[in-house]
Amino acid sequence: MAVKPKLTYFNCRGSGEPIRYLLAYGNTEYEDVRFEDEEFPKLKPNFPYGQVPVLEINGKMIPQTLAICRYLAKRNGLYGSDDFEAMQIDAVADAIVDLRNAFTFCYWITPEDQRPAHEEKLKKQTLPFYLSRFEKSLQENNGYFVNGKLSYADIFFAGQVQHFSDNTKYDITDGYPQLKALVEKVENIPQIKAWIEKRPKTDF
Amino acid sequence: MAVKPKLTYFNCRGSGEPIRYLLAYGNTEYEDVRFEDEEFPKLKPNFPYGQVPVLEINGKMIPQTLAICRYLAKRNGLYGSDDFEAMQIDAVADAIVDLRNAFTFCYWITPEDQRPAHEEKLKKQTLPFYLSRFEKSLQENNGYFVNGKLSYADIFFAGQVQHFSDNTKYDITDGYPQLKALVEKVENIPQIKAWIEKRPKTDF
Repeated sequence: MAVKPKLTYFNCRGSGEPIRYLLAYGNTEYEDVRFEDEEFPKLKPNFPYGQVPVLEINGKMIPQTLAICRYLAKRNGLYGSDDFEAMQIDAVADAIVDLRNAFTFCYWITPEDQRPAHEEKLKKQTLPFYLSRFEKSLQENNGYFVNGKLSYADIFFAGQVQHFSDNTKYDITDGYPQLKALVEKVENIPQIKAWIEKRPKTDF
Repeated sequence: MAVKPKLTYFNCRGSGEPIRYLLAYGNTEYEDVRFEDEEFPKLKPNFPYGQVPVLEINGKMIPQTLAICRYLAKRNGLYGSDDFEAMQIDAVADAIVDLRNAFTFCYWITPEDQRPAHEEKLKKQTLPFYLSRFEKSLQENNGYFVNGKLSYADIFFAGQVQHFSDNTKYDITDGYPQLKALVEKVENIPQIKAWIEKRPKTDF
Protein backbone atom coordinates (compact mmCIF):
# COMPACT_ATOMS: atom_id res chain seq x y z
CA MET A 1 0.00 0.00 0.00
CA ALA A 2 2.24 2.76 -1.31
CA VAL A 3 -0.16 5.63 -0.64
CA LYS A 4 -1.95 5.79 2.72
CA PRO A 5 -5.29 3.96 2.23
CA LYS A 6 -8.53 5.78 2.92
CA LEU A 7 -11.51 4.18 4.65
CA THR A 8 -14.85 5.88 4.01
CA TYR A 9 -17.87 5.11 6.18
CA PHE A 10 -20.60 6.70 8.26
CA ASN A 11 -19.53 8.43 11.46
CA CYS A 12 -20.29 5.36 13.53
CA ARG A 13 -18.92 1.91 14.30
CA GLY A 14 -21.41 -0.26 12.37
CA SER A 15 -19.90 -2.30 9.55
CA GLY A 16 -16.84 -0.08 9.41
CA GLU A 17 -15.51 -1.04 12.83
CA PRO A 18 -14.25 -4.57 12.00
CA ILE A 19 -12.16 -3.00 9.24
CA ARG A 20 -10.86 -0.35 11.65
CA TYR A 21 -9.95 -3.13 14.12
CA LEU A 22 -7.99 -4.95 11.41
CA LEU A 23 -6.25 -1.76 10.29
CA ALA A 24 -5.34 -1.12 13.95
CA TYR A 25 -4.15 -4.71 14.39
CA GLY A 26 -1.74 -4.30 11.48
CA ASN A 27 -0.60 -0.85 12.65
CA THR A 28 -1.68 0.36 9.21
CA GLU A 29 -1.76 4.11 8.79
CA TYR A 30 -4.92 5.21 7.03
CA GLU A 31 -7.33 8.10 6.62
CA ASP A 32 -10.49 7.43 8.65
CA VAL A 33 -12.98 9.44 6.57
CA ARG A 34 -16.42 9.73 8.18
CA PHE A 35 -19.59 11.37 6.98
CA GLU A 36 -22.90 12.09 8.71
CA ASP A 37 -26.08 10.16 7.86
CA GLU A 38 -27.68 13.12 6.06
CA GLU A 39 -24.74 13.38 3.65
CA PHE A 40 -25.13 9.81 2.42
CA PRO A 41 -27.71 10.33 -0.39
CA LYS A 42 -25.41 12.93 -1.97
CA LEU A 43 -22.32 10.74 -1.67
CA LYS A 44 -23.94 7.37 -2.54
CA PRO A 45 -23.48 7.60 -6.35
CA ASN A 46 -19.70 7.92 -5.87
CA PHE A 47 -19.38 4.49 -4.29
CA PRO A 48 -19.19 1.20 -6.22
CA TYR A 49 -22.62 -0.42 -5.74
CA GLY A 50 -23.68 2.69 -3.79
CA GLN A 51 -22.47 1.25 -0.50
CA VAL A 52 -19.98 1.84 2.25
CA PRO A 53 -17.57 0.94 3.78
CA VAL A 54 -15.19 1.57 0.91
CA LEU A 55 -11.41 1.25 1.14
CA GLU A 56 -9.49 3.36 -1.33
CA ILE A 57 -6.07 1.98 -2.16
CA ASN A 58 -3.82 3.68 -4.67
CA GLY A 59 -6.81 5.55 -6.10
CA LYS A 60 -9.06 2.51 -6.50
CA MET A 61 -12.24 2.27 -4.42
CA ILE A 62 -12.94 -1.24 -3.10
CA PRO A 63 -16.35 -1.96 -1.58
CA GLN A 64 -17.62 -4.85 0.55
CA THR A 65 -16.64 -5.27 4.20
CA LEU A 66 -15.55 -8.89 4.00
CA ALA A 67 -13.50 -8.47 0.83
CA ILE A 68 -11.62 -5.68 2.60
CA CYS A 69 -11.29 -7.63 5.87
CA ARG A 70 -9.91 -10.66 4.05
CA TYR A 71 -7.32 -8.54 2.23
CA LEU A 72 -6.14 -7.06 5.52
CA ALA A 73 -6.21 -10.53 7.11
CA LYS A 74 -3.84 -11.88 4.48
CA ARG A 75 -1.38 -9.07 5.13
CA ASN A 76 -1.41 -9.72 8.86
CA GLY A 77 -1.34 -13.51 9.25
CA LEU A 78 -5.03 -13.75 10.16
CA TYR A 79 -6.18 -16.03 7.35
CA GLY A 80 -5.18 -19.50 8.56
CA SER A 81 -2.21 -21.57 7.52
CA ASP A 82 -3.68 -23.33 4.48
CA ASP A 83 -6.61 -23.11 2.05
CA PHE A 84 -8.73 -25.53 4.07
CA GLU A 85 -8.36 -23.45 7.22
CA ALA A 86 -9.00 -20.27 5.21
CA MET A 87 -12.25 -21.74 3.89
CA GLN A 88 -13.44 -22.47 7.43
CA ILE A 89 -12.56 -18.93 8.52
CA ASP A 90 -14.44 -17.50 5.51
CA ALA A 91 -17.48 -19.66 6.33
CA VAL A 92 -17.64 -18.25 9.88
CA ALA A 93 -17.32 -14.69 8.59
CA ASP A 94 -20.15 -15.29 6.10
CA ALA A 95 -22.34 -16.70 8.88
CA ILE A 96 -21.72 -13.52 10.91
CA VAL A 97 -22.81 -11.53 7.84
CA ASP A 98 -25.96 -13.68 7.61
CA LEU A 99 -26.71 -12.72 11.20
CA ARG A 100 -25.99 -9.06 10.41
CA ASN A 101 -28.39 -9.26 7.46
CA ALA A 102 -31.09 -10.49 9.84
CA PHE A 103 -30.44 -7.37 11.96
CA THR A 104 -30.54 -5.12 8.91
CA PHE A 105 -33.79 -6.72 7.80
CA CYS A 106 -35.39 -6.30 11.24
CA TYR A 107 -34.21 -2.81 12.20
CA TRP A 108 -33.70 -1.05 8.88
CA ILE A 109 -35.92 -2.65 6.23
CA THR A 110 -39.04 -3.83 8.09
CA PRO A 111 -41.67 -1.05 8.36
CA GLU A 112 -41.88 0.19 11.95
CA ASP A 113 -45.39 -1.19 12.58
CA GLN A 114 -44.27 -4.69 11.63
CA ARG A 115 -41.03 -4.54 13.58
CA PRO A 116 -42.15 -5.98 16.95
CA ALA A 117 -43.00 -9.38 15.43
CA HIS A 118 -39.68 -9.49 13.55
CA GLU A 119 -37.75 -8.33 16.61
CA GLU A 120 -39.36 -11.08 18.68
CA LYS A 121 -38.29 -13.67 16.11
CA LEU A 122 -34.77 -12.24 15.88
CA LYS A 123 -34.29 -12.26 19.65
CA LYS A 124 -35.99 -15.59 20.38
CA GLN A 125 -34.96 -17.63 17.34
CA THR A 126 -32.34 -16.19 15.00
CA LEU A 127 -29.91 -14.88 17.61
CA PRO A 128 -29.90 -18.00 19.85
CA PHE A 129 -29.61 -20.15 16.71
CA TYR A 130 -26.41 -18.43 15.56
CA LEU A 131 -24.92 -17.60 18.95
CA SER A 132 -25.26 -21.14 20.30
CA ARG A 133 -23.49 -22.46 17.21
CA PHE A 134 -20.75 -19.81 17.47
CA GLU A 135 -20.37 -20.61 21.19
CA LYS A 136 -19.94 -24.30 20.38
CA SER A 137 -17.28 -23.54 17.75
CA LEU A 138 -15.31 -21.56 20.32
CA GLN A 139 -15.66 -24.36 22.88
CA GLU A 140 -14.30 -26.85 20.39
CA ASN A 141 -11.48 -24.60 19.17
CA ASN A 142 -9.87 -23.38 22.34
CA GLY A 143 -11.67 -20.02 22.43
CA TYR A 144 -11.27 -19.09 18.76
CA PHE A 145 -13.52 -19.81 15.80
CA VAL A 146 -11.12 -21.95 13.78
CA ASN A 147 -8.31 -24.30 14.85
CA GLY A 148 -7.52 -22.65 18.18
CA LYS A 149 -5.86 -19.52 16.85
CA LEU A 150 -6.74 -15.93 16.10
CA SER A 151 -8.13 -15.22 12.62
CA TYR A 152 -9.97 -12.36 10.97
CA ALA A 153 -13.28 -14.12 11.79
CA ASP A 154 -12.63 -13.55 15.51
CA ILE A 155 -11.79 -9.88 14.97
CA PHE A 156 -14.75 -9.47 12.62
CA PHE A 157 -17.11 -10.82 15.30
CA ALA A 158 -15.63 -8.63 18.03
CA GLY A 159 -15.80 -5.56 15.78
CA GLN A 160 -19.42 -6.26 14.86
CA VAL A 161 -20.94 -7.36 18.16
CA GLN A 162 -21.46 -3.89 19.62
CA HIS A 163 -23.58 -3.02 16.58
CA PHE A 164 -25.80 -6.04 17.33
CA SER A 165 -26.08 -5.11 21.02
CA ASP A 166 -26.82 -1.47 20.15
CA ASN A 167 -29.87 -2.68 18.24
CA THR A 168 -31.19 -5.21 20.77
CA LYS A 169 -30.33 -2.84 23.66
CA TYR A 170 -28.70 -5.61 25.69
CA ASP A 171 -25.32 -7.32 25.44
CA ILE A 172 -26.02 -10.18 23.04
CA THR A 173 -23.08 -12.17 24.45
CA ASP A 174 -24.86 -12.48 27.82
CA GLY A 175 -25.24 -16.20 28.48
CA TYR A 176 -22.47 -17.05 26.00
CA PRO A 177 -19.29 -17.04 28.10
CA GLN A 178 -17.00 -18.13 25.26
CA LEU A 179 -18.23 -15.36 22.97
CA LYS A 180 -17.92 -12.80 25.76
CA ALA A 181 -14.36 -13.95 26.45
CA LEU A 182 -13.48 -13.78 22.75
CA VAL A 183 -14.68 -10.17 22.48
CA GLU A 184 -12.66 -9.27 25.57
CA LYS A 185 -9.59 -11.02 24.22
CA VAL A 186 -9.78 -9.14 20.90
CA GLU A 187 -10.47 -5.82 22.63
CA ASN A 188 -7.39 -6.36 24.75
CA ILE A 189 -5.00 -6.87 21.86
CA PRO A 190 -2.75 -3.84 22.51
CA GLN A 191 -3.19 -2.18 19.08
CA ILE A 192 -6.97 -2.67 19.15
CA LYS A 193 -7.17 -1.54 22.79
CA ALA A 194 -5.31 1.63 21.83
CA TRP A 195 -7.71 2.22 18.92
CA ILE A 196 -10.78 1.75 21.14
CA GLU A 197 -9.36 4.30 23.58
CA LYS A 198 -8.68 6.93 20.95
CA ARG A 199 -11.53 6.37 18.48
CA PRO A 200 -14.21 9.05 18.01
CA LYS A 201 -17.01 8.60 20.52
CA THR A 202 -20.23 7.84 18.64
CA ASP A 203 -23.65 6.57 19.74
CA PHE A 204 -23.57 3.59 17.39
CA MET B 1 -8.73 -33.61 -1.13
CA ALA B 2 -7.73 -37.18 -0.32
CA VAL B 3 -11.29 -38.54 -0.12
CA LYS B 4 -13.80 -37.61 -2.84
CA PRO B 5 -15.60 -34.48 -1.57
CA LYS B 6 -19.39 -34.52 -1.21
CA LEU B 7 -21.61 -31.61 -2.17
CA THR B 8 -25.04 -31.59 -0.52
CA TYR B 9 -27.80 -29.35 -1.83
CA PHE B 10 -31.43 -29.32 -2.98
CA ASN B 11 -32.20 -31.14 -6.22
CA CYS B 12 -31.95 -27.92 -8.23
CA ARG B 13 -29.40 -25.47 -9.58
CA GLY B 14 -29.96 -22.53 -7.19
CA SER B 15 -26.96 -21.63 -5.04
CA GLY B 16 -25.38 -25.02 -5.59
CA GLU B 17 -24.75 -24.56 -9.29
CA PRO B 18 -21.82 -22.09 -9.09
CA ILE B 19 -20.04 -24.65 -6.89
CA ARG B 20 -20.85 -27.42 -9.37
CA TYR B 21 -19.46 -25.22 -12.19
CA LEU B 22 -16.22 -24.71 -10.24
CA LEU B 23 -15.95 -28.42 -9.44
CA ALA B 24 -16.48 -29.15 -13.14
CA TYR B 25 -13.93 -26.50 -14.14
CA GLY B 26 -11.29 -28.21 -11.99
CA ASN B 27 -12.26 -31.70 -13.18
CA THR B 28 -12.79 -32.51 -9.52
CA GLU B 29 -14.50 -35.80 -8.83
CA TYR B 30 -17.19 -35.42 -6.20
CA GLU B 31 -20.46 -36.87 -4.95
CA ASP B 32 -23.35 -34.66 -6.07
CA VAL B 33 -25.81 -35.42 -3.25
CA ARG B 34 -29.29 -33.97 -3.85
CA PHE B 35 -32.41 -34.01 -1.70
CA GLU B 36 -35.99 -32.97 -2.41
CA ASP B 37 -37.52 -29.83 -0.86
CA GLU B 38 -39.76 -31.80 1.49
CA GLU B 39 -36.75 -33.59 3.03
CA PHE B 40 -35.07 -30.33 4.08
CA PRO B 41 -36.73 -29.81 7.52
CA LYS B 42 -35.59 -33.28 8.59
CA LEU B 43 -32.02 -32.76 7.30
CA LYS B 44 -31.59 -29.11 8.35
CA PRO B 45 -30.27 -29.78 11.90
CA ASN B 46 -27.37 -31.80 10.42
CA PHE B 47 -25.94 -28.81 8.57
CA PRO B 48 -23.72 -26.14 10.14
CA TYR B 49 -25.96 -23.06 10.49
CA GLY B 50 -28.84 -25.19 9.15
CA GLN B 51 -28.04 -24.25 5.56
CA VAL B 52 -26.97 -25.75 2.28
CA PRO B 53 -24.95 -25.98 0.08
CA VAL B 54 -22.46 -27.84 2.23
CA LEU B 55 -19.20 -29.32 0.96
CA GLU B 56 -17.89 -32.24 2.95
CA ILE B 57 -14.15 -32.68 2.71
CA ASN B 58 -12.37 -35.43 4.63
CA GLY B 59 -15.35 -35.77 6.96
CA LYS B 60 -15.71 -32.05 7.73
CA MET B 61 -18.85 -30.20 6.58
CA ILE B 62 -18.15 -26.71 5.28
CA PRO B 63 -21.11 -24.36 4.71
CA GLN B 64 -21.39 -21.06 2.82
CA THR B 65 -21.38 -20.89 -0.98
CA LEU B 66 -18.71 -18.22 -1.34
CA ALA B 67 -16.32 -19.77 1.16
CA ILE B 68 -16.53 -22.99 -0.85
CA CYS B 69 -16.23 -21.19 -4.22
CA ARG B 70 -13.15 -19.29 -3.07
CA TYR B 71 -11.48 -22.51 -1.87
CA LEU B 72 -12.09 -24.12 -5.25
CA ALA B 73 -10.95 -20.93 -7.00
CA LYS B 74 -7.60 -21.03 -5.20
CA ARG B 75 -7.03 -24.62 -6.30
CA ASN B 76 -7.77 -23.76 -9.93
CA GLY B 77 -6.04 -20.44 -10.58
CA LEU B 78 -9.28 -18.43 -10.47
CA TYR B 79 -8.42 -16.08 -7.61
CA GLY B 80 -6.28 -13.41 -9.26
CA SER B 81 -2.54 -13.03 -9.25
CA ASP B 82 -2.12 -11.03 -6.05
CA ASP B 83 -4.03 -10.01 -2.89
CA PHE B 84 -5.22 -6.75 -4.42
CA GLU B 85 -6.74 -8.52 -7.41
CA ALA B 86 -8.22 -11.19 -5.10
CA MET B 87 -9.90 -8.44 -3.04
CA GLN B 88 -11.53 -7.01 -6.16
CA ILE B 89 -12.73 -10.48 -7.19
CA ASP B 90 -14.17 -11.05 -3.70
CA ALA B 91 -15.94 -7.68 -3.80
CA VAL B 92 -17.70 -8.59 -7.08
CA ALA B 93 -18.75 -11.97 -5.67
CA ASP B 94 -20.16 -10.29 -2.54
CA ALA B 95 -22.11 -7.84 -4.72
CA ILE B 96 -23.62 -10.78 -6.62
CA VAL B 97 -24.63 -12.24 -3.24
CA ASP B 98 -26.22 -8.90 -2.29
CA LEU B 99 -28.28 -9.15 -5.47
CA ARG B 100 -29.15 -12.76 -4.66
CA ASN B 101 -30.27 -11.68 -1.19
CA ALA B 102 -32.62 -9.17 -2.82
CA PHE B 103 -34.11 -12.06 -4.82
CA THR B 104 -34.42 -14.23 -1.69
CA PHE B 105 -36.10 -11.37 0.13
CA CYS B 106 -38.57 -10.75 -2.70
CA TYR B 107 -39.46 -14.30 -3.70
CA TRP B 108 -38.95 -16.35 -0.53
CA ILE B 109 -39.36 -14.07 2.51
CA THR B 110 -41.95 -11.46 1.50
CA PRO B 111 -45.53 -12.66 2.14
CA GLU B 112 -47.26 -13.39 -1.15
CA ASP B 113 -49.76 -10.50 -0.89
CA GLN B 114 -46.90 -8.00 -0.54
CA ARG B 115 -44.79 -9.52 -3.29
CA PRO B 116 -45.98 -7.49 -6.31
CA ALA B 117 -44.68 -4.21 -4.83
CA HIS B 118 -41.34 -5.79 -3.96
CA GLU B 119 -41.07 -7.49 -7.33
CA GLU B 120 -41.70 -4.17 -9.07
CA LYS B 121 -38.90 -2.57 -7.06
CA LEU B 122 -36.57 -5.50 -7.71
CA LYS B 123 -37.16 -5.42 -11.48
CA LYS B 124 -37.24 -1.64 -11.92
CA GLN B 125 -34.60 -0.53 -9.44
CA THR B 126 -32.42 -3.19 -7.82
CA LEU B 127 -31.70 -5.29 -10.90
CA PRO B 128 -30.85 -2.39 -13.26
CA PHE B 129 -28.74 -0.85 -10.49
CA TYR B 130 -26.54 -3.94 -10.13
CA LEU B 131 -26.61 -5.13 -13.74
CA SER B 132 -25.60 -1.77 -15.18
CA ARG B 133 -22.64 -1.64 -12.80
CA PHE B 134 -21.65 -5.23 -13.61
CA GLU B 135 -21.96 -4.44 -17.34
CA LYS B 136 -19.67 -1.44 -16.93
CA SER B 137 -17.08 -3.55 -15.08
CA LEU B 138 -17.05 -6.03 -17.94
CA GLN B 139 -16.74 -3.22 -20.48
CA GLU B 140 -13.74 -1.85 -18.64
CA ASN B 141 -12.08 -5.23 -18.12
CA ASN B 142 -12.17 -6.86 -21.49
CA GLY B 143 -15.28 -8.94 -20.85
CA TYR B 144 -14.37 -10.24 -17.38
CA PHE B 145 -15.12 -8.74 -13.98
CA VAL B 146 -11.56 -8.12 -12.85
CA ASN B 147 -8.40 -7.29 -14.79
CA GLY B 148 -9.40 -8.87 -18.09
CA LYS B 149 -9.11 -12.49 -17.06
CA LEU B 150 -11.33 -15.30 -15.86
CA SER B 151 -11.87 -15.50 -12.08
CA TYR B 152 -14.29 -17.29 -9.81
CA ALA B 153 -16.49 -14.15 -9.80
CA ASP B 154 -17.21 -14.69 -13.52
CA ILE B 155 -18.07 -18.35 -12.97
CA PHE B 156 -20.12 -17.49 -9.88
CA PHE B 157 -22.20 -15.00 -11.89
CA ALA B 158 -22.73 -17.44 -14.76
CA GLY B 159 -23.69 -20.21 -12.35
CA GLN B 160 -26.16 -17.98 -10.53
CA VAL B 161 -27.82 -16.07 -13.37
CA GLN B 162 -30.27 -18.79 -14.37
CA HIS B 163 -31.64 -18.78 -10.82
CA PHE B 164 -32.29 -15.04 -11.15
CA SER B 165 -33.97 -15.46 -14.54
CA ASP B 166 -36.05 -18.40 -13.25
CA ASN B 167 -37.54 -16.03 -10.68
CA THR B 168 -38.16 -13.02 -12.92
CA LYS B 169 -39.31 -15.31 -15.75
CA TYR B 170 -37.22 -13.48 -18.33
CA ASP B 171 -33.51 -13.57 -19.14
CA ILE B 172 -32.11 -10.89 -16.85
CA THR B 173 -29.09 -10.40 -19.14
CA ASP B 174 -31.36 -9.06 -21.91
CA GLY B 175 -30.10 -5.56 -22.68
CA TYR B 176 -26.70 -6.26 -21.13
CA PRO B 177 -24.62 -7.63 -24.01
CA GLN B 178 -21.41 -7.93 -21.99
CA LEU B 179 -23.12 -9.95 -19.26
CA LYS B 180 -24.81 -12.16 -21.86
CA ALA B 181 -21.45 -12.77 -23.56
CA LEU B 182 -19.80 -13.58 -20.24
CA VAL B 183 -22.42 -16.22 -19.40
CA GLU B 184 -21.99 -17.74 -22.86
CA LYS B 185 -18.21 -17.73 -22.52
CA VAL B 186 -18.35 -19.53 -19.18
CA GLU B 187 -20.96 -22.01 -20.39
CA ASN B 188 -18.69 -22.83 -23.30
CA ILE B 189 -15.66 -23.70 -21.23
CA PRO B 190 -15.37 -27.37 -22.25
CA GLN B 191 -15.55 -28.87 -18.73
CA ILE B 192 -18.53 -26.67 -17.80
CA LYS B 193 -20.22 -27.31 -21.16
CA ALA B 194 -19.88 -31.05 -20.53
CA TRP B 195 -21.37 -30.65 -17.04
CA ILE B 196 -24.35 -28.65 -18.37
CA GLU B 197 -25.01 -31.40 -20.91
CA LYS B 198 -24.93 -34.20 -18.39
CA ARG B 199 -26.40 -32.55 -15.29
CA PRO B 200 -29.79 -33.71 -13.93
CA LYS B 201 -32.62 -31.83 -15.60
CA THR B 202 -34.46 -29.78 -12.98
CA ASP B 203 -37.05 -26.98 -13.18
CA PHE B 204 -34.94 -24.56 -11.15
